[in-house]
Amino acid sequence: RSGEMAKLTQLIDNEVFRAYATYTTIVLLKMMLMSLVTAYFRITRKAFVNPEDTASFGKGESAKKYLRTDPDVERARRGHLNDLENIVPFLGIGLLYALSGPELYTALLHFRIFAGARIAHTFAYLIPLPQPGRGLSWAVGYAVTISMAYKVLTTA
Amino acid sequence: RSGEMAKLTQLIDNEVFRAYATYTTIVLLKMMLMSLVTAYFRITRKAFVNPEDTASFGKGESAKKYLRTDPDVERARRGHLNDLENIVPFLGIGLLYALSGPELYTALLHFRIFAGARIAHTFAYLIPLPQPGRGLSWAVGYAVTISMAYKVLTTA
Amino acid sequence: RSGEMAKLTQLIDNEVFRAYATYTTIVLLKMMLMSLVTAYFRITRKAFVNPEDTASFGKGESAKKYLRTDPDVERARRGHLNDLENIVPFLGIGLLYALSGPELYTALLHFRIFAGARIAHTFAYLIPLPQPGRGLSWAVGYAVTISMAYKVLTTA
Repeated sequence: RSGEMAKLTQLIDNEVFRAYATYTTIVLLKMMLMSLVTAYFRITRKAFVNPEDTASFGKGESAKKYLRTDPDVERARRGHLNDLENIVPFLGIGLLYALSGPELYTALLHFRIFAGARIAHTFAYLIPLPQPGRGLSWAVGYAVTISMAYKVLTTA
Repeated sequence: RSGEMAKLTQLIDNEVFRAYATYTTIVLLKMMLMSLVTAYFRITRKAFVNPEDTASFGKGESAKKYLRTDPDVERARRGHLNDLENIVPFLGIGLLYALSGPELYTALLHFRIFAGARIAHTFAYLIPLPQPGRGLSWAVGYAVTISMAYKVLTTA
Repeated sequence: RSGEMAKLTQLIDNEVFRAYATYTTIVLLKMMLMSLVTAYFRITRKAFVNPEDTASFGKGESAKKYLRTDPDVERARRGHLNDLENIVPFLGIGLLYALSGPELYTALLHFRIFAGARIAHTFAYLIPLPQPGRGLSWAVGYAVTISMAYKVLTTA
């Protein structure tokens, strides 16, 4: 069994794979943060979607008025969905890219630019920054993923 | 070739990885079930979103009235989206965690609590249970993922 | 280090894993294409959701009228979300399936039918084709994923 473990540990000991592990965990944690941002806005703006979530505000009409949409809540939710749409491809294509034997320098460049672009995208969405701030940060992350996909398809 | 296969089989033969494979498949199947729940409510509540889906109910106004939202359909869709938001991080962070060499006992604890929390979350959402039922089940799954992310980042 | 690399390269050199890498990259790129389709419809139909996205159309009421929903934009968004709901399970279950030692022929059959079904689903959604076109293409991809999950659970 310890022989098997050693084999597995080699995977996480590989520098490119370790970089993938680090940056993937960072962008996934950043995506998870969107749940807390949405919850924060729901609570401070008193804007809920499920009747059972407003029960602590009383019964009947007094609670019902909190079943509403709020611009800040909706903005956080759109940022979260955009993360899902872009981080899921990074998760899959990035893993295959890390296993396709890229140079460590090139791999780090891809992972770091992607992580930076997604963090910038979140700030651009939540502040919000004027366009093309959000559009550009989205496009950079998209282009990095396409570049990794190209490497995977030419290797596999 | 059989040598290569042997190498791969070692991965799935590793007990921690096998546990990851089992629980990931279970939570992904549970998430897929949400599609069937949504379809069930759409059909029984006659609440559709695409005009082509109501063509069997006749033409014109008689079919158009089924293009509407329904509370049960929307509730199932919210549960599905919450699964995506939480199971995608588990998929990525859990894989890296399984490769980071945790103790089998600790790994099983993480995977089982996460799977249990997500199943509880679905029941809490669909029944629905009064709060903080749904909130707590969400928080438990979230905390387990953070705990695995911590292990990945300190190992990588 | 080159010894470690050799180990990793064995993974991508394995024919089943290489097939997984190719088809996963294809379906993830197809999913990413939905972002461009949505952006195309937002721009041509002038239907935006963020106030900062309409700033180039002028200020005040003249820009505000472009903050609206459009049937084509919403259709593309629904197709994108359906991709997320179905391609995320393929990403995870497909990886575990590829590592469970299936026959190359059987694995290729699964991957190719899934990719074909999701591409058909996108055409069925965007054209749109009359039902059960979209429903069937969805069900085929769903069934392929269940079949792979069954193999994973009986192996692990």
